[in-house]
Amino acid sequence: MTAGTKDRIRDSAADLFQHQGYHATGVKQIVEGASAQLASLYHFFPGGKEALGADVVRVAGAGYQTLVEAVWDSAPDVVAGVHAVFDGAAAVLEATDYEDACPIATVALEVASTNETLRIATAEVFDAWIVAAVARLAAAGIAAPTARDLAFAVVGGLEGAFVLARATRSVEPLHAAGAVVAAAVERALPA
Amino acid sequence: MTAGTKDRIRDSAADLFQHQGYHATGVKQIVEGASAQLASLYHFFPGGKEALGADVVRVAGAGYQTLVEAVWDSAPDVVAGVHAVFDGAAAVLEATDYEDACPIATVALEVASTNETLRIATAEVFDAWIVAAVARLAAAGIAAPTARDLAFAVVGGLEGAFVLARATRSVEPLHAAGAVVAAAVERALPA
Repeated sequence: MTAGTKDRIRDSAADLFQHQGYHATGVKQIVEGASAQLASLYHFFPGGKEALGADVVRVAGAGYQTLVEAVWDSAPDVVAGVHAVFDGAAAVLEATDYEDACPIATVALEVASTNETLRIATAEVFDAWIVAAVARLAAAGIAAPTARDLAFAVVGGLEGAFVLARATRSVEPLHAAGAVVAAAVERALPA
Repeated sequence: MTAGTKDRIRDSAADLFQHQGYHATGVKQIVEGASAQLASLYHFFPGGKEALGADVVRVAGAGYQTLVEAVWDSAPDVVAGVHAVFDGAAAVLEATDYEDACPIATVALEVASTNETLRIATAEVFDAWIVAAVARLAAAGIAAPTARDLAFAVVGGLEGAFVLARATRSVEPLHAAGAVVAAAVERALPA
């Protein structure tokens, strides 16, 4: 029962939650995907599936934020950064047969009205994403209230495009939303 | 076993799917919510839960489209219409303790990679919503490619804002996305 086992359980759960949702995923399926024993899951997560779920939401949410920030920050300016985030997400979706999108959105919708522990975990992740987006928009000179509206347009635009793109198996929703949101950011820049 | 029973089964399923998701909802819970017998569910939906799910996605999707179109079309112009859609959705969310948002989004994310029958049902609904939004933007004089990008910004912006709003129990994501998308529509109008 090494730390590697804990990571494998977390990775297996994150993968299953993202692709089929929290409720469709059983603890047996999680440990099978991790090549681990059920006892290991309860050793590392004494609170069972819910505790594992909250941990996975926070870890996967932070990991996805790091990834998106890297894509954004490697672009030459804030407008190109927003384009890169939407276009990069589209490329990943296509490359993974429309499986890999937001790692926590499915769980977020499932638990919003049914599990307060998990809802709070998803809310904390989304709040952190908004803060990170606001910081980048503000650093480009966009004033506070507008920067916050645009941060919601970026993060929400990405989340909504994921819903449409996965359902329709098309990346058009991501490119379209990216074009509209990037243009809004461009117009908000100081002259 | 009247037609009223079928409607009650459909309504119960729609309510449960929206609030807790497809996988968390059992057929027993659906018939209990409908004050019906399990035999009635299989009488009206011989394909069981999956057939009922596809039917509910189509009926609830069309019903939500009718509602949103009524809100949009009662506004004096297309920009006010987009504002009204986002603000109306925010008002409903607040009035229902953050339960009533998009009736099919939770199911859409759960089934996108796991159930092709249900995925296609959600894709058809989203496609119909995009067509309806494009028609309204085009009628206001916005040229075709831009109208389609903006339609994705409206529908996707609403979907993404629902994810963030339900998770954070705040209507700020809806008002912020509505402001950004309505401004984009306004700028796209012919002079």
